[in-house]
Amino acid sequence: MLRVGIVGYGNLGQAVERSIYRHGEYKLIKIFSRREVKSPYGTEVERLDNISKYMGKIDIMILCVGSYEDIESIGPKLIKKFNTIDTFDTHSKIVEYKERLNKLATECHRTAIISCGWDPGLMSLVRTLFDSIGDGESVSFWGKGVSQGHSNAIRLVDGVANAIQYTIPYKSAVRRARAGMKVGDKHKRLCYVAIKTGYSKRDIRDKIMGMDNYFKGYKTIVKFVSQDNVARMQKKLYHRGYVVKSWDIAGLYHTTMSLRLDIESNPDFTAEIVMIYLRVVDRLYNDGSYGVYDVLDIPFKMLLRDKNKINI
Amino acid sequence: MLRVGIVGYGNLGQAVERSIYRHGEYKLIKIFSRREVKSPYGTEVERLDNISKYMGKIDIMILCVGSYEDIESIGPKLIKKFNTIDTFDTHSKIVEYKERLNKLATECHRTAIISCGWDPGLMSLVRTLFDSIGDGESVSFWGKGVSQGHSNAIRLVDGVANAIQYTIPYKSAVRRARAGMKVGDKHKRLCYVAIKTGYSKRDIRDKIMGMDNYFKGYKTIVKFVSQDNVARMQKKLYHRGYVVKSWDIAGLYHTTMSLRLDIESNPDFTAEIVMIYLRVVDRLYNDGSYGVYDVLDIPFKMLLRDKNKINI
Repeated sequence: MLRVGIVGYGNLGQAVERSIYRHGEYKLIKIFSRREVKSPYGTEVERLDNISKYMGKIDIMILCVGSYEDIESIGPKLIKKFNTIDTFDTHSKIVEYKERLNKLATECHRTAIISCGWDPGLMSLVRTLFDSIGDGESVSFWGKGVSQGHSNAIRLVDGVANAIQYTIPYKSAVRRARAGMKVGDKHKRLCYVAIKTGYSKRDIRDKIMGMDNYFKGYKTIVKFVSQDNVARMQKKLYHRGYVVKSWDIAGLYHTTMSLRLDIESNPDFTAEIVMIYLRVVDRLYNDGSYGVYDVLDIPFKMLLRDKNKINI
Repeated sequence: MLRVGIVGYGNLGQAVERSIYRHGEYKLIKIFSRREVKSPYGTEVERLDNISKYMGKIDIMILCVGSYEDIESIGPKLIKKFNTIDTFDTHSKIVEYKERLNKLATECHRTAIISCGWDPGLMSLVRTLFDSIGDGESVSFWGKGVSQGHSNAIRLVDGVANAIQYTIPYKSAVRRARAGMKVGDKHKRLCYVAIKTGYSKRDIRDKIMGMDNYFKGYKTIVKFVSQDNVARMQKKLYHRGYVVKSWDIAGLYHTTMSLRLDIESNPDFTAEIVMIYLRVVDRLYNDGSYGVYDVLDIPFKMLLRDKNKINI
């Protein structure tokens, strides 16, 4: 049985743990965290600083820390000792991160799959497929729903006690995309932020709205609320995804392809996707295919649990 | 420039020709047909019997003949002399056909991709992806629209002058699938048939309804109409596809993934998909990867025209 470890024990780490116990396919050895945490399943928790000790005892480390700062710094350290999997979701940095990690993985004979959640991940696959067919480009929408990556990024701002971010698509933009028309602004980002005492709302708003790759250049609304309010909202981590491509073949035949995801629990859905790619990391590693892969590198035949169940 | 030939000049063959001239990426050398046909583009037409002469002059043969009988007999003959691509769509026979063709292709150092239309093809990819995630199984629906494969199969029945077949999903079945409930009968098949004089309607109806893999065991309605009526209906070859998977993660979190295709011209859309896999056949062949592949074998990174345009 494949031995795995969870690195980071926030929403995603906890969902991955639930998923591992439910599927019973992998053996969870340890949870690694910088905080004092406790697993409801009684999984042993170890300080992240001590992770090197587990080299040879854990086959794959599942990185469930945030994408905003943590994955890029922790991933390269871990790849020297472990195979890894992550859901790194800063789209604009994926190519650079992959190259950097790939260099290390190839040197150390390790295998990693990066960015394998639902976006990047599932939606990247569908975008690539859609974009390879016919003319024009696909358009992706997110929401209405809670972005874990964006919420996490806000929480790292000094003075923020807690925060949640809703991504909301403009209905008119969705309609235009479905008709194959040019689409302008696609989303607004609504942030509910609870601040620590002694901090300036204006400063915090400016910091949030200036974050590259997250809010800078996007329509962003910051609302300040109590910690209780944020905590209540955090109980429902639903989300939605939509990829659509619409064009006229030869200027004559209207064609629309669309993918829709309705997700009641974002972290639990992401964890389900991580489960299938864990198996792929292991298989690549055992085949001697060292290096770093993303979902576009993996043929779908490798995703199937039971190869006899091909439903072509 | 890759030199290609079209084998079979029905709806699909004509759409593939249009697609080749529109994209300007491949050089169309010849159309091969058993009938006397004429290309509106002036492409030279050759008798199918003479196809062997073109060994070494054509890189990939695009099989646009019917799946009901032709592809299984013509494919194995051609693979000895050419790389091939087809949209073979008898789902239940794909594994067997692939194995048989693969044996020949490997021996003769040829490469083929089979079954690469929108279903099998695009929808097979999405089914496999959906089915690999979480519990339960995806459900596929087709229509309302014209099935080219089924229409073609009816036209091969002795006494049939012309025919068109509409596949119509039951709305209640679609609703049940979206809710994650068990689905019974999914479609009815409506056949409009024009018969030749001197044939019995009852005999023809029985023959159609008894066709394995096509109508036997499916709710099928056969209506007899004039040739003019069928010809008029054949001007609009629209279709639709829908793949949906719905389940509760851990019995708690309702999750729905769905793909929807709205296709105004079935043959032209299929041709667009063939265009991208032509490039893949060529690349596999040049890499020395001989044998037979289906869409599940091909990582998406190979589909992109411009590898720098990855939109992960």
